[in-house]
Amino acid sequence: MHEVFENVVRFEETDAQGIVFYGNYATFQDETFTAFMEAIGYPYSEIEEHGWDVHVVNLELNYRKPAEFRDTLHNAMRVTAIKESSIEFAYECRNDAGELLVEGTVVHVAVDESGAPTRVPDEFREAVAAFQDEPPEPV
Amino acid sequence: MHEVFENVVRFEETDAQGIVFYGNYATFQDETFTAFMEAIGYPYSEIEEHGWDVHVVNLELNYRKPAEFRDTLHNAMRVTAIKESSIEFAYECRNDAGELLVEGTVVHVAVDESGAPTRVPDEFREAVAAFQDEPPEPV
Amino acid sequence: MHEVFENVVRFEETDAQGIVFYGNYATFQDETFTAFMEAIGYPYSEIEEHGWDVHVVNLELNYRKPAEFRDTLHNAMRVTAIKESSIEFAYECRNDAGELLVEGTVVHVAVDESGAPTRVPDEFREAVAAFQDEPPEPV
Amino acid sequence: MHEVFENVVRFEETDAQGIVFYGNYATFQDETFTAFMEAIGYPYSEIEEHGWDVHVVNLELNYRKPAEFRDTLHNAMRVTAIKESSIEFAYECRNDAGELLVEGTVVHVAVDESGAPTRVPDEFREAVAAFQDEPPEPV
Repeated sequence: MHEVFENVVRFEETDAQGIVFYGNYATFQDETFTAFMEAIGYPYSEIEEHGWDVHVVNLELNYRKPAEFRDTLHNAMRVTAIKESSIEFAYECRNDAGELLVEGTVVHVAVDESGAPTRVPDEFREAVAAFQDEPPEPV
Repeated sequence: MHEVFENVVRFEETDAQGIVFYGNYATFQDETFTAFMEAIGYPYSEIEEHGWDVHVVNLELNYRKPAEFRDTLHNAMRVTAIKESSIEFAYECRNDAGELLVEGTVVHVAVDESGAPTRVPDEFREAVAAFQDEPPEPV
Repeated sequence: MHEVFENVVRFEETDAQGIVFYGNYATFQDETFTAFMEAIGYPYSEIEEHGWDVHVVNLELNYRKPAEFRDTLHNAMRVTAIKESSIEFAYECRNDAGELLVEGTVVHVAVDESGAPTRVPDEFREAVAAFQDEPPEPV
Repeated sequence: MHEVFENVVRFEETDAQGIVFYGNYATFQDETFTAFMEAIGYPYSEIEEHGWDVHVVNLELNYRKPAEFRDTLHNAMRVTAIKESSIEFAYECRNDAGELLVEGTVVHVAVDESGAPTRVPDEFREAVAAFQDEPPEPV
């Protein structure tokens, strides 16, 4: 799994339990997705230019350890499956000590300009395969 | 000043000091603006239909007392001035006991479809005047 | 499932796709949890007074339809299982037309003052059973 | 003014107007405050260790140009006045081209452990003066 996004916990992201509010990891994971797309050379702007878009259809997060204000979070991602019109990503968030704080998955569906599901373009599949060394699960 | 928006503090809105993070009052004030527009019978959807939009150019908030998780916030607003292309609102946020927690101002500029400043429509001026009993400061 | 929390989409909650950013449903679901606890007569303040606390360990959300600015969201929740030290909730978010927008689950672990897992108190189990008509899955 | 904090606009921070929701600059400015404190060698953790804390009492932001998803924001800060128990900061946020997007001020009040206003410690005044070359406005 490639670490592609690093962030430092903001005060706004903490809650009255003194830790990062758990919903914020959806944002961290979304930024990790954005950074992953840039890392593979297929940034979100490219998606729009090629006439498709992505919609999140499933999010799962497992919380192992809390993070606090000013902790540095190391966020990693990997495509685990590309189906006809969906892409599944695994996500991990670790602290400076390498401890796993949060891990989970997110599934994006590729949609065309009308919002209907569409085939994930081959250029995207190839960009992922090239980046991840070995091709993800075949369709 | 008319109380037009009420909200209960969410856990996500608290921070590690155990109180509402101060930046969240920008959101509460923005929802109060939305509710105010609805209260005067000129909702945001009407703005868009009439071919103009509003951009915030200035926000000032003064913090008097903190709020905590589950506190009910009573948000009030009043137009204090309508200039050629700008609208100034006064804002107050009080708790159940009527104590002032936050007060401030926000200035919106009316823009046309190109994003250039445009005259605040007379229908809006009249809607405000009718709602607030007496006309705001004349241009 | 009981609808216990209603909210109107805030402008701050929308994103550049023109819909509610998907991570915000974690917050809506968390407020639904809070409202559920109040509905069963065991509010969060009660948890603290009885010397335990809850930590979220798993969150899963499935996105069916998007919501837009000013949509009213109807949020429902039900306890689906209480194990020795964990509580699983099912969550549904619907629009005014009753259409399902988001559904999912969240798992809270009961912890004692040291942060170690502890048995979910019987008073809580009984409050849930009384509210939900029939007892959830027995331990 | 020293640039002490840089951030890239997150998708979650955009709104249905396609730009950064204006309330988010309160968060950016708060992180700039945190980074400023670290830059002068008096981090927030030091504040707590020395038995005082800071509360925001006034926030003012002026919006000049919008920012979009993936824009890099360069945030700068300067102490403009230290009174007996308050500290006033000027804040500027610029884009990569050096254009001013947002500028404003924030005022923090120093409070003791009971929450009562207290004198801003001399060590803090000296750290600011050393960092900013010339001492801020004398008390």
